[in-house]
Amino acid sequence: MDISLGLIKEIARTSPTKIVLLVIDGLGGLPNPETGKTELETANTPNLDQLAAKGICGLIDLVDPGITPGSSPGHLALFGYDPIRFNIGRGALEAIGIDFDLQPGDVAARGNFCTVDKAGRITDRRAGRISTDKGTELCQLLDGLVVDNIKISVRPVREHRFVVVFRGGDFVPALSDSDPQQVGVTPKAVTALSPEAGRAASIANQFIARAQATLAEHHPANMVLLRGFSQRPHFPSMSEVYKLRPAAIASYPMYRGLAKLVGMEILETGTTIEDEFATLKQNYADYDFFFLHVKGADSAGEDGDLDRKVRIIEQIDNALSELISMEPDVIVVTGDHSTPVLLKAHSWHPVPILLYSKWCRYDKVSEFSESACLSGGLGRFPATQVMPLAMANALKLTKFGA
Amino acid sequence: MDISLGLIKEIARTSPTKIVLLVIDGLGGLPNPETGKTELETANTPNLDQLAAKGICGLIDLVDPGITPGSSPGHLALFGYDPIRFNIGRGALEAIGIDFDLQPGDVAARGNFCTVDKAGRITDRRAGRISTDKGTELCQLLDGLVVDNIKISVRPVREHRFVVVFRGGDFVPALSDSDPQQVGVTPKAVTALSPEAGRAASIANQFIARAQATLAEHHPANMVLLRGFSQRPHFPSMSEVYKLRPAAIASYPMYRGLAKLVGMEILETGTTIEDEFATLKQNYADYDFFFLHVKGADSAGEDGDLDRKVRIIEQIDNALSELISMEPDVIVVTGDHSTPVLLKAHSWHPVPILLYSKWCRYDKVSEFSESACLSGGLGRFPATQVMPLAMANALKLTKFGA
Repeated sequence: MDISLGLIKEIARTSPTKIVLLVIDGLGGLPNPETGKTELETANTPNLDQLAAKGICGLIDLVDPGITPGSSPGHLALFGYDPIRFNIGRGALEAIGIDFDLQPGDVAARGNFCTVDKAGRITDRRAGRISTDKGTELCQLLDGLVVDNIKISVRPVREHRFVVVFRGGDFVPALSDSDPQQVGVTPKAVTALSPEAGRAASIANQFIARAQATLAEHHPANMVLLRGFSQRPHFPSMSEVYKLRPAAIASYPMYRGLAKLVGMEILETGTTIEDEFATLKQNYADYDFFFLHVKGADSAGEDGDLDRKVRIIEQIDNALSELISMEPDVIVVTGDHSTPVLLKAHSWHPVPILLYSKWCRYDKVSEFSESACLSGGLGRFPATQVMPLAMANALKLTKFGA
Repeated sequence: MDISLGLIKEIARTSPTKIVLLVIDGLGGLPNPETGKTELETANTPNLDQLAAKGICGLIDLVDPGITPGSSPGHLALFGYDPIRFNIGRGALEAIGIDFDLQPGDVAARGNFCTVDKAGRITDRRAGRISTDKGTELCQLLDGLVVDNIKISVRPVREHRFVVVFRGGDFVPALSDSDPQQVGVTPKAVTALSPEAGRAASIANQFIARAQATLAEHHPANMVLLRGFSQRPHFPSMSEVYKLRPAAIASYPMYRGLAKLVGMEILETGTTIEDEFATLKQNYADYDFFFLHVKGADSAGEDGDLDRKVRIIEQIDNALSELISMEPDVIVVTGDHSTPVLLKAHSWHPVPILLYSKWCRYDKVSEFSESACLSGGLGRFPATQVMPLAMANALKLTKFGA
């Protein structure tokens, strides 16, 4: 356990107070050249502004200044877990991302359908980006194989991407990639990276050989490439560290998977923002920590769609009224990274954060925006400090030291 | 390799974008009691102010708040290398400072000419600060000795200071100082700090004995003191860490030496600020990272010369127009430490920084000064984060984690 998690664990206490952490995926933006306003500054957000006025604001760095976070490190940091130390292997992350129930001992790898020529050389690492339907159909052909008592599950992700999970017995994940990450060469044999991984390497190679035989007539998807063999990492759970009863509300599987990794209970919800807030309301009595994740702002940012990103932020703002009327003790609103519509991608820019509680020592910020948060009372700080701040404001942390 | 350098190495990518890091040595200052303005605030700097207005500003701590950096830690931090972890031994630093081409295996020590009495006790550790000419003459008497196949080079630094370099065979640097750092006692014998250093200690002591014999009639410089035996440290190069093609433009040898240590190519240049900017222009097409170092502001600060420090900052500002017209993707302007004219020395005060790029999320700062930078969008942050930020703004870093 991380030293700071250890410290938090030592001083955390249960209490009836409630914390809501609302993560607007890809919240941060960049000023539009014509208006000089970011997406958040363009949106009309009376509820967020009211919370900012009554609360305390700042800017967070999810990983480190200049570092653009993926969804996984961004969320782990918000949950209080050092995103560099608590790294998740590629295969495990893909499995988590499709909500595959990865068990202790399971080993997952990220798979690509690819195209090889007659000499076995890779001509396209993505098999012409076959459709998700086609990918799903091919996964069904490969799914369920048992080699040497290891059950092999193959599940589609999207287009040419899939996940393979090896389950049963002693399958050691210390394995090299078969994916050479370039074309014009043959796929590599999977090799054992530790003496105990010999059997696992042999099983992985047998799976690849059988997949090749099965896919022979399915050009362009006539071969597979595997990489990132890894297990579900073990993280100390949020109930262990924070003594919370935490629940997650997220319509996308990746975020449910990340929440599950840190021990949150996953609440079933619908696909809209209103569904998610309704789920929160229905379950409000049963938990003392809610992670509510809204995906749309990030997708709009990645599509470079200013209007849509603004609209989604306004929709969230609108849904907030009811949450505010439920009077949680602490409300935190922030993002897991910036996704400026100008960049059409995740970016390194720090993300605005507001924290409202009765005890927050409010500042003079009266508008929730990148530029206003710059002069907020929370300053600019690492996202791993968000949970301790939320806990403190919920009076869930006792004194450290005598 | 440092964990954060390792992380940067993992996500760095080459791209055609260009970064210029302009280091104004000793940039930061203190408000003059009469005007209330620092040196930078006194200077008329339209170009820096324009860059600040279009860019994002802040303040950096080179080592840590309260710590006054030497030139070496200040620059290493700006290059992204933890200045506490990446320490350079005193001898190696002196050799680098006079542009001595220290080879792997060479061991350098810092030397002082000193005065000893008839009983061999030190009466002046600096031999009355003999002139640089005299020091140079004495170094020539000692230079070129060969003891037990080790070639010993002796090179003047300034006044009573010199560098000794031991080259050839297996000369182990684990050696104690002969300099007791006090008067009234005799110089200490050099001793081996590891079992393998016995021969090196004997050679160092033979050198000292021969130097004493040679200098017998050269009172007050009738003895030598050695300290800080060390080798050229091995740092991962900037091309390895950042995948950059980096070049350095510096008229002072110390800064060329530091740049060489992190693998920059050293461009020949003249002695004036205009020469340095002209060198940048001539070589602009051939590199994607330029470190441009201007020394004068620090020297003026150390001399307590307000007018000269102001004039040099204005001269740099003037030279900036042409650089701006070349439109580098990222321009960073900062210093390696403060050198307030009121203190006549390096100081611990954080140093203003501006970063200009198309993607910088500009702030409201419209003037490049200590007080204006205080409310800048970069906040106050460690200098080791300058390179990741510059890289990010040049779109040379990919996402961390999926």
